[in-house]
Amino acid sequence: MTIGVDVGGTKVAAAVVAEDGTVVSETRRDTPADDVSRTLQMIMDAVEELAGAHQVEAIGVGAAGWIDAARSTVLFAPNIAWRNEPLRAELADKFGLPVVVENDANVAAWAEYRFGAGRDVESMIMYTVGTGIGGAVIMEGQLIRGAHGIAAELGHLTAVPDGQVCGCGRRGCLEQYASGQALVRLGQVAVAHVPATAPILTQLTGGDPEKVTGPMITDAARQGEPASVAALADIGKWLGLACVDLVQALDPAVIVVGGGVVEAGDLLLGPARRAYVDGMAQRGQLPVAELRPAEMGNTAGVIGAADLARSR
Amino acid sequence: MTIGVDVGGTKVAAAVVAEDGTVVSETRRDTPADDVSRTLQMIMDAVEELAGAHQVEAIGVGAAGWIDAARSTVLFAPNIAWRNEPLRAELADKFGLPVVVENDANVAAWAEYRFGAGRDVESMIMYTVGTGIGGAVIMEGQLIRGAHGIAAELGHLTAVPDGQVCGCGRRGCLEQYASGQALVRLGQVAVAHVPATAPILTQLTGGDPEKVTGPMITDAARQGEPASVAALADIGKWLGLACVDLVQALDPAVIVVGGGVVEAGDLLLGPARRAYVDGMAQRGQLPVAELRPAEMGNTAGVIGAADLARSR
Amino acid sequence: MTIGVDVGGTKVAAAVVAEDGTVVSETRRDTPADDVSRTLQMIMDAVEELAGAHQVEAIGVGAAGWIDAARSTVLFAPNIAWRNEPLRAELADKFGLPVVVENDANVAAWAEYRFGAGRDVESMIMYTVGTGIGGAVIMEGQLIRGAHGIAAELGHLTAVPDGQVCGCGRRGCLEQYASGQALVRLGQVAVAHVPATAPILTQLTGGDPEKVTGPMITDAARQGEPASVAALADIGKWLGLACVDLVQALDPAVIVVGGGVVEAGDLLLGPARRAYVDGMAQRGQLPVAELRPAEMGNTAGVIGAADLARSR
Amino acid sequence: MTIGVDVGGTKVAAAVVAEDGTVVSETRRDTPADDVSRTLQMIMDAVEELAGAHQVEAIGVGAAGWIDAARSTVLFAPNIAWRNEPLRAELADKFGLPVVVENDANVAAWAEYRFGAGRDVESMIMYTVGTGIGGAVIMEGQLIRGAHGIAAELGHLTAVPDGQVCGCGRRGCLEQYASGQALVRLGQVAVAHVPATAPILTQLTGGDPEKVTGPMITDAARQGEPASVAALADIGKWLGLACVDLVQALDPAVIVVGGGVVEAGDLLLGPARRAYVDGMAQRGQLPVAELRPAEMGNTAGVIGAADLARSR
Repeated sequence: MTIGVDVGGTKVAAAVVAEDGTVVSETRRDTPADDVSRTLQMIMDAVEELAGAHQVEAIGVGAAGWIDAARSTVLFAPNIAWRNEPLRAELADKFGLPVVVENDANVAAWAEYRFGAGRDVESMIMYTVGTGIGGAVIMEGQLIRGAHGIAAELGHLTAVPDGQVCGCGRRGCLEQYASGQALVRLGQVAVAHVPATAPILTQLTGGDPEKVTGPMITDAARQGEPASVAALADIGKWLGLACVDLVQALDPAVIVVGGGVVEAGDLLLGPARRAYVDGMAQRGQLPVAELRPAEMGNTAGVIGAADLARSR
Repeated sequence: MTIGVDVGGTKVAAAVVAEDGTVVSETRRDTPADDVSRTLQMIMDAVEELAGAHQVEAIGVGAAGWIDAARSTVLFAPNIAWRNEPLRAELADKFGLPVVVENDANVAAWAEYRFGAGRDVESMIMYTVGTGIGGAVIMEGQLIRGAHGIAAELGHLTAVPDGQVCGCGRRGCLEQYASGQALVRLGQVAVAHVPATAPILTQLTGGDPEKVTGPMITDAARQGEPASVAALADIGKWLGLACVDLVQALDPAVIVVGGGVVEAGDLLLGPARRAYVDGMAQRGQLPVAELRPAEMGNTAGVIGAADLARSR
Repeated sequence: MTIGVDVGGTKVAAAVVAEDGTVVSETRRDTPADDVSRTLQMIMDAVEELAGAHQVEAIGVGAAGWIDAARSTVLFAPNIAWRNEPLRAELADKFGLPVVVENDANVAAWAEYRFGAGRDVESMIMYTVGTGIGGAVIMEGQLIRGAHGIAAELGHLTAVPDGQVCGCGRRGCLEQYASGQALVRLGQVAVAHVPATAPILTQLTGGDPEKVTGPMITDAARQGEPASVAALADIGKWLGLACVDLVQALDPAVIVVGGGVVEAGDLLLGPARRAYVDGMAQRGQLPVAELRPAEMGNTAGVIGAADLARSR
Repeated sequence: MTIGVDVGGTKVAAAVVAEDGTVVSETRRDTPADDVSRTLQMIMDAVEELAGAHQVEAIGVGAAGWIDAARSTVLFAPNIAWRNEPLRAELADKFGLPVVVENDANVAAWAEYRFGAGRDVESMIMYTVGTGIGGAVIMEGQLIRGAHGIAAELGHLTAVPDGQVCGCGRRGCLEQYASGQALVRLGQVAVAHVPATAPILTQLTGGDPEKVTGPMITDAARQGEPASVAALADIGKWLGLACVDLVQALDPAVIVVGGGVVEAGDLLLGPARRAYVDGMAQRGQLPVAELRPAEMGNTAGVIGAADLARSR
């Protein structure tokens, strides 16, 4: 058995995970995200609790941020005050166990690959669509990390040349068109400019575009609100278009879509599949990767991290 | 030692290659491209000549076309009449040696990776820019072939959404903007519409746009002809822009550019590097892959095929 | 009453037209398009026949091509061998009447403006969608000809930056996306790559993409063939998108769409209206120009030319 | 003589203007922009002062905002609290003189057309590049106002399909790429992501991207700062590209560029001309409109308004 830790901006989840992906035991702590040493302490507390009660062989940690190519140091984390944090050394010294540190999108993809939507294939690509868009690439059983540990930044591939300015400094990144953030922006435009198409959003927000949220749009779309259905279809379309090029480049067996937005189900994935299949069909009868929703939900983080520690 | 065979549309080249990439002996035959059984015979003749004189352990074959995921059958070749040709079985039966069949762009990339422009790295991407554009992806020492053997179609990633119609059935493929074919089209437009900027091309072709060729443009550019310099810079720019996204997706250590167009040197690679570095710089101080010209020239085919047979 | 002459690549049509747009009398001749002097002779014959039988005050001539700003000389005609043909002087000398020479798209638009789809407004824009795309702009009752007589080249506004190469030398012109030529290209791609979606076209052409024609696609679409419906919808979409920008620039009361493609009716205009209305709606509740089909059909040429001669 | 009034967000300027465009007398008031009735009072004060001292025949008023097609009511003004303000009736009632109300970009263009950069031509287009982008179209001596008074929204033509979201509700408007606002955004990206290329901006702002202003960039560019030179070149390029399409549509004799950004001179107009001339050159040897800077500066408002009142 190994321990998997999922370090998020608000909480730390940790679990003992068996070889077959079963969660044997789990625990949680809050994340004091502004305080580097207390965040480390919370992780250590959680691991200690589990390691005291179970015989474990290794520790895997997943965290949002850039991890170095050696999978040991968190170079930068957007939601936690870590800068060049030597997380592997700190945990290995404390517990005397092998430790692997990995990017959260990679960890979630690994869980899907081993036990979820990709368990039947050798090669898969995964998009994790939350506020932003994370990505992961697994080819012939190997997680592709790149020469500097920063591969698979699939949310920052170009969707629109010269398009919307992205926080990353470039223009037209997929994240500006297919993320939760992009979804909200479409809802805001509807409330501000064409409220007749968004009666539910308009009512829920009192007509203030700033109050639109992603889950509001998903709910309104389920009730058939035209602007919300169209907003989900729009980000789905961009996601599907992006898949066309990735499939040309990497020929995976499946593409898995995860993250909060996936709760919209076929309101998102339907238009994504249409854009994707249409894009691929233009090239004739090539075999194409299937587009699937993620299956592992919130436990993907701890399970994926634990399994990566095992197969390190 | 192993034998490498490079099957082109006009000739078959074969060589005995040592473990360090040295060509020990080589031979050639014409390719009767319309005649499937005589093409096979020519390959067998060449191999027989070499295998008779040297102790060899395996045979590697590189050919333009789609090869199946098992690396044994040529599904389709654009320049030779092969359709579902079981090349591996045919050669293995004849010579009693292990055989590997591989796509020509992959073979050339492998030669660069082992002995050429990528010999110092673990992960590289290669563009082979000829009339069309071939691609190859090698990640952590592994040639990425994909779930169906058709990965790395880098010439058919989207450069311009809704752009130029491509022979593959889609619109806006990189091949329409950065290939030798695209270069010729730019030269033709210059001769037809603004001949004052293309005096050399205009003289060489007698003003007939249909007579423009790629090497003509490279020569004219070397002499400073504005339209030809601009044409090479234009395809270089598109190539550089394409590298930005691939680096986001795969984080290779180097990008190698090969194929006939590379003879234009910095007239092509200078603008490519500017577009690429500029695109990457917008994201801040990330480490980025170097853009390098291929080094192996015409021998890449036989050497790469031979080495793939060894490391099969 | 005035005479209107419509000079096409295969025939010359001429008519005596009353002030209310009624055709009083008409006649025709073949166009010997390769022979400049015989083409002029045919025009003179037709005018002579009509002028002999009716009291007329002026002559208007419409012809495909670039006409100078003084409306007197045909600078260049694509379908007739005219180069710098002083057509006004030739006819004025012969008949002793005032003569106006005008571009065919302008003539057709003028007929619609005076007696057809634009008769109730002061400002309109017209697209004439045939093999290529012609355009005309009438603002507050005045035909906009531009400083050099070459305004309203609406088929050569950019639909897609860096898009499909156009015969005019630029990339991405609307003509490459919304003309009859573009329609045929879409049908060809369907027959070549996804014939299952184009059973009617495939049968009519025996599977040879080169044999696809525009009317074939319109017929197949009327029978519900998916690829043909989609092809008309695609060019309609591009036309509608183009209208959005023109309306921002010129705020016409109506946009009239004419030319052979209009026979597809709502199969074309439905998607055009959706793309247009959707594009405009994003800007809120501004008044927007209506998108209407042309009403004058084939007589637009002679009636518009005659009326321009009257209102010269 | 007539009176011209230029109503801005911070001040009201008024002048008595002679038939040849000479300012005979002028006066100013502050604009209490939040207070509709006091703003009107300030305008009346200024006009009264001038009308008391001079014999005048008409009053022209220019104001930022949407004016109705009858040129009498300000439907909406972005910087002043006017909503459906019947400005013409109010002033006409008070002074017993003919009054014309016109959009500020149209007024400035009219001044250039009559006495400035367009005084030698019949047809011109003008871009006014400030924080946003205003536009005006004058064809054969006639100001094109459109069927609903909202023509010439040249800042909201599409520069990039699916591009940057615009405040108007659409994506990819020119204003997002070529305005002062766009210039500032480019400076901010340089300070935030690649400060080594923007040492002057970085020093002036203390490294805070939010503190970058347009005039800072112009000054830094004059001193040769790479990022600032590149930022001006970038917005110039977009402006030049936009001109290509407008010239295809309207064939003006000149294109005039005015507004605050023009103080950057050839740092802006050089790249604009290159993009424009290059775009036009691709179509061969057609005559093309000249791209000129505006000449009338800050007095364009009062002079244009006064002259429009005269030629109403």
